Amino acid sequence: MRNFKVFMSYRGTDYHGFQRQNNAVTVQETVERCVGKVLNEKSEIFGCSRTDAGVHANRYCFSVYTNSSIATRNFVRGVNGELPKDISILSCEEAPSSFHARYSCTAKEYVYLIHNSESHNPFAQDLMLHYRRKFNAELVREAAYHFTGTHDFKSFCGANSQKIVTVRTICEFYVEVNGDRIKLLVKADGFLYNMIRIMVGTLLGVNEGQFSPSDIPLIIAAKDRTKAGRTAPAHGLYLNRISYSDRQT
Amino acid sequence: MRNFKVFMSYRGTDYHGFQRQNNAVTVQETVERCVGKVLNEKSEIFGCSRTDAGVHANRYCFSVYTNSSIATRNFVRGVNGELPKDISILSCEEAPSSFHARYSCTAKEYVYLIHNSESHNPFAQDLMLHYRRKFNAELVREAAYHFTGTHDFKSFCGANSQKIVTVRTICEFYVEVNGDRIKLLVKADGFLYNMIRIMVGTLLGVNEGQFSPSDIPLIIAAKDRTKAGRTAPAHGLYLNRISYSDRQT
Repeated sequence: MRNFKVFMSYRGTDYHGFQRQNNAVTVQETVERCVGKVLNEKSEIFGCSRTDAGVHANRYCFSVYTNSSIATRNFVRGVNGELPKDISILSCEEAPSSFHARYSCTAKEYVYLIHNSESHNPFAQDLMLHYRRKFNAELVREAAYHFTGTHDFKSFCGANSQKIVTVRTICEFYVEVNGDRIKLLVKADGFLYNMIRIMVGTLLGVNEGQFSPSDIPLIIAAKDRTKAGRTAPAHGLYLNRISYSDRQT
Repeated sequence: MRNFKVFMSYRGTDYHGFQRQNNAVTVQETVERCVGKVLNEKSEIFGCSRTDAGVHANRYCFSVYTNSSIATRNFVRGVNGELPKDISILSCEEAPSSFHARYSCTAKEYVYLIHNSESHNPFAQDLMLHYRRKFNAELVREAAYHFTGTHDFKSFCGANSQKIVTVRTICEFYVEVNGDRIKLLVKADGFLYNMIRIMVGTLLGVNEGQFSPSDIPLIIAAKDRTKAGRTAPAHGLYLNRISYSDRQT
């Protein structure tokens, strides 16, 4: 039995997230069908992360066991030939049988993209949050810094979560502004359900005077979802990179 | 009578170019309808350039005469409120009555975007040419340099053109490579029908060994469309900037 470690990117707009569901089209079932066709067997792929409906991925990792003898390069070509245009396989390599895209993961990096202008961006529809207000990068940066470190992020966890342990470690939280484009980048050992979208919504609340940067530690300490800000829309969010062991891929 | 100088961007995918047509949806009629609604009069807009079906614009200029007393800022907001998401007004300023977006134009800059990778890019669908072959930037740069200067570009003029004077001056032709993204930037006093797309197709022919860089002057000298390369697809092309008098806007 071989184990393939596969990277792909996808535009999440037309999918109800990654994970297979009964009554909605998801990335997992779409990819599984194409992978199974190329491997000529019934395939189950293991994704590195659930993503919400509308969330995108620049470099998503999944693993899949196979009995096929196909060359990895032909696997990439074959699956890309089957996939719709909004999903693309980037690479495939052989991994040890112990490798699992979700359980072997040591860190995840997400970016949140914002188009900051009065006018909307015809090219960013479904790909960036359109935010019209003036953006105070220094203020938001100061607030974002309070998220870094190891904290109980219960206040930033969506109501539907069944996670019992809500402690996570955020090692980076950058705020970059380039003209009318704002990029928030956050890297952690893992994230709770809706955690990034609630953090981004809270940072926008800081920008709008709803909170001050020094409120962030108090919101964290409250362990109460109602103390944090709104949940930012899904369509600005991208799974950007996944780390395995010491190696970032 | 006031004269508005207006900049907009649009995603050209769902339009049959800028110019009004009888049996197809174009940018001009779409914008004219929204402008007329906001100005509360029958408006005719004058565009800086025809663009082909599927071609995009980062900063397109049009002018429009009006009897309305509306503030320019409210004009921008009002028209954006009426427009579909793939067209966006960026700015509006008052111009002298002699200003005409097409006839006052002194130079135009276009970019052509290429996604250069074996795998397709889920985010660049309809926005970049997907080009799988290895790209030799030095070779293409050498060829592109031969386009600069004042030449008769008849060999690079689509068959449907009725232009009699086919001499144009190209002042810049850059080839930039950034990872898997290639950007060709060309600036001239004007372009013939399909001229950029044929130049880009010919440069890809150079990359593929169909032509050598030193063939470019011979192709230009031939004044024969059949000597040049293929016409590159429209969806990688963007009207990027327009210059008026000494001032680039």
